[in-house]
Amino acid sequence: MPQERPRVVILGAGFGGLEAAKTLARAPADITIIDRQNYHCFQPLLYQVATAALSPAEVAWPIRHILRRQQNATVYMAEVTGIDLTERAVNTKSGSFPFDFLIVATGATHSYFGHNDWAAFAPGLKRIEDATRIRRSILEAFEQAELARDDNERRRLLTFVIVGGGPTGVEMAGAIAEVARQTLARDFRQIDPRTSRIVLIEAGPRILPAFSEPHSAYARDSLTAMGVDVMTSTPVIRCDERGVDLKEGRIDAATVIWAAGVVASPAADWLAADHDNTGRVIVRADLSLPGYNNVFVIGDTACVRGAGGVPVPALAAPAKQMGHYVGRLIIQRLAGRSVPPFRYRPLGTLATIGRRAAVVEFGSLQLKGFIGWLFWSVVHIYFLIGLRNRFVVALTWLWGYITFQRGARLITEVPPPRPQG
Amino acid sequence: MPQERPRVVILGAGFGGLEAAKTLARAPADITIIDRQNYHCFQPLLYQVATAALSPAEVAWPIRHILRRQQNATVYMAEVTGIDLTERAVNTKSGSFPFDFLIVATGATHSYFGHNDWAAFAPGLKRIEDATRIRRSILEAFEQAELARDDNERRRLLTFVIVGGGPTGVEMAGAIAEVARQTLARDFRQIDPRTSRIVLIEAGPRILPAFSEPHSAYARDSLTAMGVDVMTSTPVIRCDERGVDLKEGRIDAATVIWAAGVVASPAADWLAADHDNTGRVIVRADLSLPGYNNVFVIGDTACVRGAGGVPVPALAAPAKQMGHYVGRLIIQRLAGRSVPPFRYRPLGTLATIGRRAAVVEFGSLQLKGFIGWLFWSVVHIYFLIGLRNRFVVALTWLWGYITFQRGARLITEVPPPRPQG
Repeated sequence: MPQERPRVVILGAGFGGLEAAKTLARAPADITIIDRQNYHCFQPLLYQVATAALSPAEVAWPIRHILRRQQNATVYMAEVTGIDLTERAVNTKSGSFPFDFLIVATGATHSYFGHNDWAAFAPGLKRIEDATRIRRSILEAFEQAELARDDNERRRLLTFVIVGGGPTGVEMAGAIAEVARQTLARDFRQIDPRTSRIVLIEAGPRILPAFSEPHSAYARDSLTAMGVDVMTSTPVIRCDERGVDLKEGRIDAATVIWAAGVVASPAADWLAADHDNTGRVIVRADLSLPGYNNVFVIGDTACVRGAGGVPVPALAAPAKQMGHYVGRLIIQRLAGRSVPPFRYRPLGTLATIGRRAAVVEFGSLQLKGFIGWLFWSVVHIYFLIGLRNRFVVALTWLWGYITFQRGARLITEVPPPRPQG
Repeated sequence: MPQERPRVVILGAGFGGLEAAKTLARAPADITIIDRQNYHCFQPLLYQVATAALSPAEVAWPIRHILRRQQNATVYMAEVTGIDLTERAVNTKSGSFPFDFLIVATGATHSYFGHNDWAAFAPGLKRIEDATRIRRSILEAFEQAELARDDNERRRLLTFVIVGGGPTGVEMAGAIAEVARQTLARDFRQIDPRTSRIVLIEAGPRILPAFSEPHSAYARDSLTAMGVDVMTSTPVIRCDERGVDLKEGRIDAATVIWAAGVVASPAADWLAADHDNTGRVIVRADLSLPGYNNVFVIGDTACVRGAGGVPVPALAAPAKQMGHYVGRLIIQRLAGRSVPPFRYRPLGTLATIGRRAAVVEFGSLQLKGFIGWLFWSVVHIYFLIGLRNRFVVALTWLWGYITFQRGARLITEVPPPRPQG
């Protein structure tokens, strides 16, 4: 009887899961990729969907299309309900999938630090649906302000609060400022969108804390010049449907966007595994689950420490490195060889602030301003999956750059937010 | 005291309402456009959104952006609840709008001929949300078929029924056939999408009844060659969540799309006006409401008869003609002049069947096949609003034509369908 090919099951087709699948393209194994969505979402550009610059289809791509030529890969759209480590099977709403190797790469979602009821008032930005929901909320605020007959209500509608001064918060604040000051400037009759108030609130002492002090200050100055109120050392005490409470007082705002914290997907529950305080599974040096050398956890779902014990950041590049590492490890193990422990190679980090302004820290390459923005654009275009997407996004950006316009300003219906767990 | 400028209120920013607003650009009047959406939707291309070829933002454009330079025009996003003809005011959920002239251009929606419960199983295609709902339904059917472990269930999932053989039904059937036979051909492992069954069901004796017999037969032959089952003289007896019942028997299908009938928006109720059996308001020769020479009803909402008593078809071109006519009538009346009755100038009609096949009847210009398809493409690109949209759509089509790919294959969450009234 011929030996059956080993079965590798990958949960999640984000940056980590997809990279693992691609690395295993030539492995003598059957690869199954399971995701609850049918698409891979390019999360770094999701804020551009939320601010109407790009359409969802320009930052997302069907998983099975990406892997269509990889004959050993099968893609299923299914929702995981649990993992049976003893029986070596993943249970989903659409049946059970046995595995010989398992790679868990299910990502992370926003964390409200114990205040899950805030999710209803302050949506985060992790999924396509989050982005279209925020887009609807921003555009509707302007529409309702145009109709408002009360000054206080109009002011509340034209106030936008972004909680969290990391890259996503900075990008959102900059993009909303551009929407208000430029894109919409001439489109209303009763209101002047340029009078909108955009507030970026950070609990820590400075925004972009992962960047150097000078870049952090540059980001702050750039945002201030764009008309954003930057408030640091300001924790949010409470969110409700009409605004936020701070130590300093209350800000009435129709739109509050949450960019403050993340929590890993429920993988630690599925695996009954030890995890850190953001739910990330503690893994061994080869990214395997303690006690199971055929089960791996990667990307935002894993708690991994790099050189000097510094945690590996929850970004696309480390997730891809982990995916590639585990793919290679499985190939080597099937050939009877072993590999050294995972080593994180920091590539660098970058954040855009607005039209013509970005900060880039790639080792000794430190850029800011227009040249940083150009670098940021090229890097993101380069990493976008799918030829057509790259091309369309590049054209859309060029067009938007020349005209200040945003093509995706549609208020479409959205489902209610998912309950936070 | 200076004379106040007359107030023209336009309900609906479809083809008719928008054309009326533009015609009134130089009128000495204040124009208010009220729509429940913030965008004008280019309905003739909605089927391309439903079949994942275009993104919503490529066929829709913010109303206030279109009219941003027209200083006498104010756009509000609000939902009409009623019209008070005595007080001369439109009531909305966001307040009341007084008018001196009123133009009702609120369009039409699908009709289920008294079976409104079918709406839940067989969505129609009138709004952006309808298109993304149908897109989700088509793509999910393939995903679930890939997971199915039962042959009958797989066959049901891969059966697509389109009810109604007018242009929308023909376009949907052709596009779904292309998705199944070409776009998705290589993307699955457990199923072969090319084995999908696509059925176009028409109650009347032939499809495209508004076209000549030879073109109707050509459309039928083209669809058959593309692998579509065309059933004529076949009324649908019943729709449910697992398929449709016909006189000839039952077709089990996961996806049923309704392209069979339309009914006008509730304008006749708002105006307490006489209407025909599809709800369209009976208007006078100058498109005014009997008894009110300052209230006009245009486009799909109006029942207008052209030369020889033939009803004017519910298409974009006649709606634009009516909008232009009423705009001019108001300008002339404000100048103390009158205009002759509305006269419909039939421009012609066209429908695309698939890649390289279309039928065109523009008076003596009769085209079919590839040249018809080229003509269809140019006409639609030409009429798309917004420079960037035209450009992006043209590029997207060119790309799709070369690669057979469709970029918008995203299964995103959609709200439940609106109750049919």
